Amino acid sequence: MTIDICFSPALLSYYAQPNDVVVVTDIFRATTTMCMAFSNGAKSIIPVASIEEAEEYKQNGYLVGAERNTKRCTFADFGNSPFEYTENRVKNKEIVFTTTNGTLALHAAKESGKVLIGAFSNIEAVVEKSIELGERIVVLCAGWNNKVNMEDLLFAGAFAEKLSAHTSLNLDSDAAKIALDLWNIAKENVADYLKGTDHYHRLVANGLEKDIQFCLQQNTLPLVPFYDKREAKIRVR
Amino acid sequence: MTIDICFSPALLSYYAQPNDVVVVTDIFRATTTMCMAFSNGAKSIIPVASIEEAEEYKQNGYLVGAERNTKRCTFADFGNSPFEYTENRVKNKEIVFTTTNGTLALHAAKESGKVLIGAFSNIEAVVEKSIELGERIVVLCAGWNNKVNMEDLLFAGAFAEKLSAHTSLNLDSDAAKIALDLWNIAKENVADYLKGTDHYHRLVANGLEKDIQFCLQQNTLPLVPFYDKREAKIRVR
Repeated sequence: MTIDICFSPALLSYYAQPNDVVVVTDIFRATTTMCMAFSNGAKSIIPVASIEEAEEYKQNGYLVGAERNTKRCTFADFGNSPFEYTENRVKNKEIVFTTTNGTLALHAAKESGKVLIGAFSNIEAVVEKSIELGERIVVLCAGWNNKVNMEDLLFAGAFAEKLSAHTSLNLDSDAAKIALDLWNIAKENVADYLKGTDHYHRLVANGLEKDIQFCLQQNTLPLVPFYDKREAKIRVR
Repeated sequence: MTIDICFSPALLSYYAQPNDVVVVTDIFRATTTMCMAFSNGAKSIIPVASIEEAEEYKQNGYLVGAERNTKRCTFADFGNSPFEYTENRVKNKEIVFTTTNGTLALHAAKESGKVLIGAFSNIEAVVEKSIELGERIVVLCAGWNNKVNMEDLLFAGAFAEKLSAHTSLNLDSDAAKIALDLWNIAKENVADYLKGTDHYHRLVANGLEKDIQFCLQQNTLPLVPFYDKREAKIRVR
């Protein structure tokens, strides 16, 4: 079994091989938020790349989650905080979703063999599902506007560590070594390690420490959302 | 003063700002080799992206260095080993040069404010020149076919460390933190740390341990090649 890690959606074409299992991650906060929505009973999520598309869905009566630069778009029902997606608001609902980076990463990945949604919230469940589904796993870090970010790399390192605990793993890729070595520095206190980073600052400046803490907890939402190509939706079953 | 680090030529457009000083690095081996050529008196280097262009120059009587996948192209006078570019072969000569990754990175950078050639061989000289030239420095890692590699990231980390010893530095970028933290793990024994990496294997498999050792030595060739936009050549003066 092989793992590779792609640090930016703009690099995926250089990493992708046919039949890859691609694990899309956007720790702060899109993929964590999707896990929360499904955990609270959402039926499906329709990921859209642009604000314009999301607004069109809204006009047609859909529930819409839309965020840009950490803030909820004014027309939308939800922003990108996991705590907004409560059971009474999302149970059995279909939600249209667009975020600064997460939906961009999904868009880049959608032609891959299988596409799973990964976060610290469901890390162990995604590791197990990946082993079941494929021989080559690529963790795709959403980053920030196609730039590399730390929290997604740390997730990738944690993912590689957990995967290697379950199965014999080819870790030859430099990207995997980079992510693992950073994870080994950070893992004793991830929130503390992230204090010097871009997105941490941005979230704290917007009063979102609670989101940060939640997004870094492991295995709180043990389900595996996947991208259903035929329907162009994310579902859990 | 600000530093950012771009992990792949394919990401430069997301990192670039007007008037950046871009330090292009391809530690194994293109930028090290260019430093050696200039140290041995080469007059200028004409970087070309394709083998076809390099062959055309060769047919027109130019000296040509050309490498793909660590091997010298058969038509060429030199490959990509610094030890081939001896004084008796390069002094006062103009050399056409194409390599797997280094010239790709140069091509990506050529519209930047200033473009310098960086390697461990000239690291301190490039740090000093960068401080003289600009307010915002971007280290552009050549990587391998647009994928991230370890040795270029380590150079970037070492560069950030040295730059911050000279001047007050904005190190807020996640990419800079990643490179610095890796450099801090690796710096006690860089060759040892690199033993698990892709390109190290590739070079050792081709009998090039001597090149590796040389490419990791600091300040052996203290000059600063730069890209002269007007002439589309690399020069030192």
